[in-house]
Amino acid sequence: MLTQTASLIDPLALARALIQAPSVTPADAGALDTLESALSSLGFRCERHRFEDVDNLYARLGTEAPVFCFAGHTDVVPAGDDAAWQKPPFSGEVEDGVLWGRGAADMKGAIAAFVAAVARYREAHGEPAGSIAFLITGDEEGPAINGTKRLLEAVHEAGERFDHCLVGEPTNPERMGETIKIGRRGSLNGVVTVTGRQGHVAYPDKADNPIPPLLDLLGRLLARKLDDGAPHFQPSNLEVTSLDVGNHAHNVIPAKASAKFNIRFNISHKGEDLKRWIEREAKAAALGFEGRIDLDLKVTGDAFLTRTSAFTDLLKDAVAAETGQEPAMTTGGGTSDARFIKDYAPVAEFGLVGATMHQVDERVPAGDVEILTRIYTRILTRYFEVFNA
Amino acid sequence: MLTQTASLIDPLALARALIQAPSVTPADAGALDTLESALSSLGFRCERHRFEDVDNLYARLGTEAPVFCFAGHTDVVPAGDDAAWQKPPFSGEVEDGVLWGRGAADMKGAIAAFVAAVARYREAHGEPAGSIAFLITGDEEGPAINGTKRLLEAVHEAGERFDHCLVGEPTNPERMGETIKIGRRGSLNGVVTVTGRQGHVAYPDKADNPIPPLLDLLGRLLARKLDDGAPHFQPSNLEVTSLDVGNHAHNVIPAKASAKFNIRFNISHKGEDLKRWIEREAKAAALGFEGRIDLDLKVTGDAFLTRTSAFTDLLKDAVAAETGQEPAMTTGGGTSDARFIKDYAPVAEFGLVGATMHQVDERVPAGDVEILTRIYTRILTRYFEVFNA
Ligand SMILES: [Zn+2]
Ligand SMILES: [Zn+2]
Repeated sequence: MLTQTASLIDPLALARALIQAPSVTPADAGALDTLESALSSLGFRCERHRFEDVDNLYARLGTEAPVFCFAGHTDVVPAGDDAAWQKPPFSGEVEDGVLWGRGAADMKGAIAAFVAAVARYREAHGEPAGSIAFLITGDEEGPAINGTKRLLEAVHEAGERFDHCLVGEPTNPERMGETIKIGRRGSLNGVVTVTGRQGHVAYPDKADNPIPPLLDLLGRLLARKLDDGAPHFQPSNLEVTSLDVGNHAHNVIPAKASAKFNIRFNISHKGEDLKRWIEREAKAAALGFEGRIDLDLKVTGDAFLTRTSAFTDLLKDAVAAETGQEPAMTTGGGTSDARFIKDYAPVAEFGLVGATMHQVDERVPAGDVEILTRIYTRILTRYFEVFNA
Repeated sequence: MLTQTASLIDPLALARALIQAPSVTPADAGALDTLESALSSLGFRCERHRFEDVDNLYARLGTEAPVFCFAGHTDVVPAGDDAAWQKPPFSGEVEDGVLWGRGAADMKGAIAAFVAAVARYREAHGEPAGSIAFLITGDEEGPAINGTKRLLEAVHEAGERFDHCLVGEPTNPERMGETIKIGRRGSLNGVVTVTGRQGHVAYPDKADNPIPPLLDLLGRLLARKLDDGAPHFQPSNLEVTSLDVGNHAHNVIPAKASAKFNIRFNISHKGEDLKRWIEREAKAAALGFEGRIDLDLKVTGDAFLTRTSAFTDLLKDAVAAETGQEPAMTTGGGTSDARFIKDYAPVAEFGLVGATMHQVDERVPAGDVEILTRIYTRILTRYFEVFNA
């Protein structure tokens, strides 16, 4: 049931329409409606899954395996100071071959390319010998609690399965074709709070300064070299990101001191093992201290690596064919919703150039949206040749 | 020229009148007027020295050497939550033998005892064979910039000299007679500010986290055992009192981190030497760091010790005679204006019981004000016997 001709989906026009919806997490502002309408016109069955204040979209074309899934998000980070932008952040203007606006790179441009690629694939090949799914959330940039994670749980519960998944995050640092992500580092957020006893600096024996045990613990954490890296991964790294006492009185020993830190870790570590290590060091730092050390440790994603395979090979070949460049298969950068998807299917990521993402004047070359559409079209074509052979 | 009989000065009544002036630094609220009027009635020549928003009083009885000087302050720390007090903080009530109110211990009770002691001395001995001076500031509890320091400079400039000085700070921890202070530790306040480069935790090589060099420097400072104490002094001690970054984003490496610390040091150290040591450690901690470490180091007072002598002996004997207890000659606790006076004359401190000073429900046994008056009277008597022999 071909409901629309592929030529009607212009990826740049769709990207502009998506950018014009100011969908700052958790607002949707019509972005998912725009997407749903485009997908429906292509014959997708669309389901909205609302979790608390977040709207999400699951769509599928076809009923058979293999199921190729495009994944991404329509929410964007705030524009910041609108006046600092060269173009209004939600105008989606195209000028001199550049597509401007919040979400152009991260990742409304890629979502438009997903849709246009499906249209082109069907124009060339008809219905896929398998299924194409869309897993789109409105909460990737926010807490990511009511987004991809819950959406996956819900559709999996309803019987949906995916054979492979491609996330459209902006993976290229500077130019199209540089980088495919085949994994991500894990991330652990920690807050240490040390509680002692307030007092006057002139009478330290009547007080318990919480700062020395805090410094001791942070020193222990920073002293450990976590590893030297792992295949496809940078070395794991711990950064202390905040220290908080807020005591303005020079002569007062404070009652409480806290610190925040983050660990980005590769597959040499499990988040749970790192938590146990930190707990042990906190015990050691608390020796001889009469106050208490409280830890709040959250693993927001374990490290994962998608094994190179026929799937990652076809991604690489498609990127190389359209860009003339062999992409690196890496795992650097921040986390993404791929951390949730990896539990359901092999997942990789390829999208636009991320150089301006999350910044003022976010933009991409308009031509890159076309290149990405061609890459995705080539991926779909090759996918159903390889996996339904 | 005896202008008033000593029996007219009741130390408790004068203490109450002083407490009823809510002279929270830098307000005077009439406290110095009350004191000046009492001193004038005893024949003192009084001068007011106003420096910016602070009023100060210098008074002298007699023209000849030796000059014995009483020193102290009429300002008080804020009452805090009035409702938390059992008695209104500026009522100066006496009930069941207890004198209540802000300043009762620190140190309006002692100032009243100064005045009453002079009256009793003169009733017994007539004019002193020498001079008695009062050096009273309205800024001891505040920044202490426009108080004793400038008052001393002004009267010294005008030719005034002191042979010995007694400060009426509350020196006794629990009971009258426990402690005479014959020195004070020095105090150094430090602020370290480390400036790096902000970035994302996922890209630490694009940032310069200021926290590790800050932790390194603090670790160096805390690692040094400054000394094991000195005669009449506790060991020197460094306390880190604040850590300040205030970064709420778990994934952001901050641009700036700072810490505050205080050193209380004994006569094994000079403040300037400690500053140079800290500067050296900061240089070492900055090695290999591309940002900068800024230090703001202030020595608010060097350590000093008044040598035991005929002067300190007569203080000790007077306290012992009135309390039946041999006082310890110590240097503990916070700083006081004695740190300024020591440059002009040998100085010691003895006053009331400080257990409730700076707290809600500040109070002293009313009988202690009488005991203190007798001690001061005995000191004056013995002073002019010994030093004008
Ligand atoms: Zn994104
Ligand atoms: Zn005081």
